[in-house]
Amino acid sequence: MRKLINDPATVVTDALHGVAAAHPELRVDHDHRIVVRGDAPVRGKVGLVSGGGSGHEPLHAGFVGPGMLDAACAGEIFTSPVPDQVVAATRAVDGSAGVLHIVKNYTGDVMNFEMAAEIVQAETGVEIATVVTDDDVAVQDSLYTAGRRGVGVTVLLEKIAGAAAEQGRPLAEVAGVARRVAANGRSMGVALTSCTVPAAGKPTFDLPDGQLELGIGIHGEPGRRRVPAAPAHEIAGMLVEPILADLDFTGGPVIAFVNGMGATPLIELYVMYREVAALLDAAGVAVARSLVGPYVTSLDMAGCSVTLCRADDELLRLWDAPVRTPALRWGA
Amino acid sequence: MRKLINDPATVVTDALHGVAAAHPELRVDHDHRIVVRGDAPVRGKVGLVSGGGSGHEPLHAGFVGPGMLDAACAGEIFTSPVPDQVVAATRAVDGSAGVLHIVKNYTGDVMNFEMAAEIVQAETGVEIATVVTDDDVAVQDSLYTAGRRGVGVTVLLEKIAGAAAEQGRPLAEVAGVARRVAANGRSMGVALTSCTVPAAGKPTFDLPDGQLELGIGIHGEPGRRRVPAAPAHEIAGMLVEPILADLDFTGGPVIAFVNGMGATPLIELYVMYREVAALLDAAGVAVARSLVGPYVTSLDMAGCSVTLCRADDELLRLWDAPVRTPALRWGA
Repeated sequence: MRKLINDPATVVTDALHGVAAAHPELRVDHDHRIVVRGDAPVRGKVGLVSGGGSGHEPLHAGFVGPGMLDAACAGEIFTSPVPDQVVAATRAVDGSAGVLHIVKNYTGDVMNFEMAAEIVQAETGVEIATVVTDDDVAVQDSLYTAGRRGVGVTVLLEKIAGAAAEQGRPLAEVAGVARRVAANGRSMGVALTSCTVPAAGKPTFDLPDGQLELGIGIHGEPGRRRVPAAPAHEIAGMLVEPILADLDFTGGPVIAFVNGMGATPLIELYVMYREVAALLDAAGVAVARSLVGPYVTSLDMAGCSVTLCRADDELLRLWDAPVRTPALRWGA
Repeated sequence: MRKLINDPATVVTDALHGVAAAHPELRVDHDHRIVVRGDAPVRGKVGLVSGGGSGHEPLHAGFVGPGMLDAACAGEIFTSPVPDQVVAATRAVDGSAGVLHIVKNYTGDVMNFEMAAEIVQAETGVEIATVVTDDDVAVQDSLYTAGRRGVGVTVLLEKIAGAAAEQGRPLAEVAGVARRVAANGRSMGVALTSCTVPAAGKPTFDLPDGQLELGIGIHGEPGRRRVPAAPAHEIAGMLVEPILADLDFTGGPVIAFVNGMGATPLIELYVMYREVAALLDAAGVAVARSLVGPYVTSLDMAGCSVTLCRADDELLRLWDAPVRTPALRWGA
């Protein structure tokens, strides 16, 4: 195992201390392992809470700040945060305008956010809405999900819903915007190598050189099938085609997102973006905005995913709105 | 070799097409392999040109835009750009206020930028100043350098000098600011794995599991020594101590930068940042700003580097000034 860590048992704790040291504008509650926007709760603003297993950084803590999340809950590596964390985060960001829970569709995450919502609502009466992302077209049910997995669209949703909340819109509207993003986004990923969970100390799965795992999940869950290694333009086709087959992306502007899985360098992501853009152009899909980089990682997995999201003028304006977080920042 | 590429021979070309597709606000001259700010030349503004071998993305093309570079020249993988590229970039950004060349200290880069400067000056009379970065304390001379190698401080310099140029300062002042950053920055890196150059198809060097290459260069050049794998806090010590031994960082504000080498995920970089911050605190070094992420990569090498730069109020103000590039963006 080749990792820059102290101890497999303290990776998440240590990284959260690093986040606290690097980003004094955020508050890190080390007892609850939550990262909170420094000025939370913002009175009159809907609070946005997300979270999930660690190992996907910058998702979610890297997206906490004005214009995006109010708080993120960091579970153990690839393990859902417990309800207590979500309860603490929800209370910390409750500005009396309600709270939106943004949850990737994994059984543990969905259950624990639900339990937390019930607890906080019973105790404080705060209104909570929940949106679940399930954009991964690779598999219907998988190791950790009933239904599809939530992956890359979560980043787009957190940005766009965060902008709507920042404008002071009411909870129902912010949740409505979030559901539109979730409903209009689709993703598909590929792995060139396995990730290695620190506590396990060895690769999660065995992937021989010369093979790709197509439709990989962000925890190393199996995908659709193994395929022989292929040039980038063929791999791009294997990712884009199932997405376009699942939803009609013609006829309106689209946000295109090529995501790195953690160990794939940026030069390769730009090679992939070229191929994805060419395929979309050929298919009559109009890309209005793009994002290229490692935003939803899977520890040290090599590979990438493609996310497309149908947008409209309103969603694009919200995407363009100022944001100030460790990992996404512009206009502020 | 596990890479998302089409062909080892077209990686740089393909990636530049990806940059063009993803960032319509930039101009990519595919004949010269240069990336230019869309509104260049900006009349009355000093133009900033950098460049170097590819494989270090986002350095340098990812730093082109308002508040940072005006143009970047992309050499082949780990190979200096040729003088023609630098000539084309210099001409493209000449706004009649002079041009600053920012060059990492590698023999080929220094020579080719020098030749280009002579050619352009002879042909157009434009005034050109050059600043060379040589911040890597690991080795005095190395495989590709006389003197120290230029690494992480290049990012800080491009940001800070870019802000000075954006304010309309004359060439001598912009070059002076750039030289202050170069003189006050020091770096040291470590590799956990080798990188693999696409055209070679196999790792540049052999690094057995359980060993680290301390003082690694960004092209896989040998470092100071091999050491046994160690916990993050010990590795942080091995990087920070030689930096602090080389220059006194107490007594003023410092910019601290933990850089990923390409295949190391963000969670590990934050673990490292925690340890670096603790060591600096113990040594009486006051961190005023930080940067954590993969900004000067070495293809798919796993590892990281630490860069410290002594600053002052002026340099911090320039660091904080608005910037709008693919890889660094805030306030704009």
